[in-house]
Amino acid sequence: MASSATNRRHITGFSNPTVKALRSLREKKHRKAAGRFLAEGLRLLTDARDCGYIPEVLVLADRRDPHPLLTALEEAVEANGGEIVETTADILSKITGKDNPQAVAGVFAEFDTSLAALDRSAADIWLVAQALRDPGNLGTMLRTGDAIGAGGLILIDDCADPFSVEAVRASMGAVFTQSIAQARWEDFDEWLRGGAGQLVAASLRDAQPYRSAPYAAPCFVLVGNESRGLPEAYEMACDLRVTMPMKGRADSLNAAVAAAVLGYEVLAALED
Amino acid sequence: MASSATNRRHITGFSNPTVKALRSLREKKHRKAAGRFLAEGLRLLTDARDCGYIPEVLVLADRRDPHPLLTALEEAVEANGGEIVETTADILSKITGKDNPQAVAGVFAEFDTSLAALDRSAADIWLVAQALRDPGNLGTMLRTGDAIGAGGLILIDDCADPFSVEAVRASMGAVFTQSIAQARWEDFDEWLRGGAGQLVAASLRDAQPYRSAPYAAPCFVLVGNESRGLPEAYEMACDLRVTMPMKGRADSLNAAVAAAVLGYEVLAALED
Repeated sequence: MASSATNRRHITGFSNPTVKALRSLREKKHRKAAGRFLAEGLRLLTDARDCGYIPEVLVLADRRDPHPLLTALEEAVEANGGEIVETTADILSKITGKDNPQAVAGVFAEFDTSLAALDRSAADIWLVAQALRDPGNLGTMLRTGDAIGAGGLILIDDCADPFSVEAVRASMGAVFTQSIAQARWEDFDEWLRGGAGQLVAASLRDAQPYRSAPYAAPCFVLVGNESRGLPEAYEMACDLRVTMPMKGRADSLNAAVAAAVLGYEVLAALED
Repeated sequence: MASSATNRRHITGFSNPTVKALRSLREKKHRKAAGRFLAEGLRLLTDARDCGYIPEVLVLADRRDPHPLLTALEEAVEANGGEIVETTADILSKITGKDNPQAVAGVFAEFDTSLAALDRSAADIWLVAQALRDPGNLGTMLRTGDAIGAGGLILIDDCADPFSVEAVRASMGAVFTQSIAQARWEDFDEWLRGGAGQLVAASLRDAQPYRSAPYAAPCFVLVGNESRGLPEAYEMACDLRVTMPMKGRADSLNAAVAAAVLGYEVLAALED
């Protein structure tokens, strides 16, 4: 495919409006205003392209090693009518907030995160997080969801932003393979009960051992806030409460770890 | 116990030498030079006390709500001949590097992390991490180790510092319940083969399904670096290589997640 010069620019000034606009995407309010988010790294952007997501703007370090995947990305962006911005490593570092930036970053339109857009029949497992505050945990849950073949991650109440640079980075590309929905508890509860679905929580209340529990598809695996866990009312609304062994002094696991241990157990049970 | 005024000070200046020394403990080189590390939070310090670890210095916010556990901590530190420093919330925030600091932090002597100090017969499961770079992952592995009743965490090659504020925080107190060792691969290999022990890695090479693998105690669960995974030679030195389902595009899990999923599987297998 012939390279067109039309949509390609070289920027070297920190105060350039495009650089400012790109940097601003590190802040949630600017992401929401623009409806756009940033993802970085050749592998992640290649995964995105394979999933059908082409960045609207591709930002490249001007001194970079050639790479066939990078060329393929540039061609895809040009064919799609997108923009290519070449800039210095310093500016790229400012944009992504990372000391050693990857040689490439992309700007994507945020996805529809309404519950109505979810197709619960698309997968046997869904992860659900309530008031999850840490973007790293959120991204890790997306990554785990991809690994266990989950359909996506449903974020209940006030969670970290799934489109933050940190969450996208921790997802290792799963932000493009997993569906993401955001909802208040009441709306989620109403949506869930409008169709098939078993809601399962890791819990200490009236719970049975997680290893032999009667999981059923579509299974919605719910974990709570990092500090406070799940509100009791939410736990009580679950169809199944299961408990994982706690052999030591601690009475809880890291939220992303709990989701993974339980998610892999559900996967094994449903495949039996 | 009567409160003694001898070892209690009130400090309000950022440039006070004690404040500088406490702040410096956020940097690894200063921790190593002092042989000391910082832990914060009432619950964490109470866990430490219950495990027999009393801080040498207890740092308190001067405007704090009274709490019986805090009083108990103060008494323990005084009875132990330790020092109590009262300071402003601002200074406490500078010391711990956290915007909303907990009302209390403590200084502890670093533990002996030589392999020789480990008693492998003390537990059926041990976690082992190679070149783990993220202190949050490291702390999460300690927390998971506590939950599965592991004996401790063995850090191979260049890992994040287990005594960093971030790792201690993510461990949720497990830094005081789990043994920690640091070693080069060659030394670990020699130590491991000098006694009973099965070394197990999550791997894609010549691996069997993790759900039905013949785990045996003491079982050493090995995970590799976040980006590169394990060196092939290390995988090949394992007694058992197991693989977890990867249903999506990704070919790996977050390191702390992999350790947890595998660790819980080993726990279940050994308890059967």
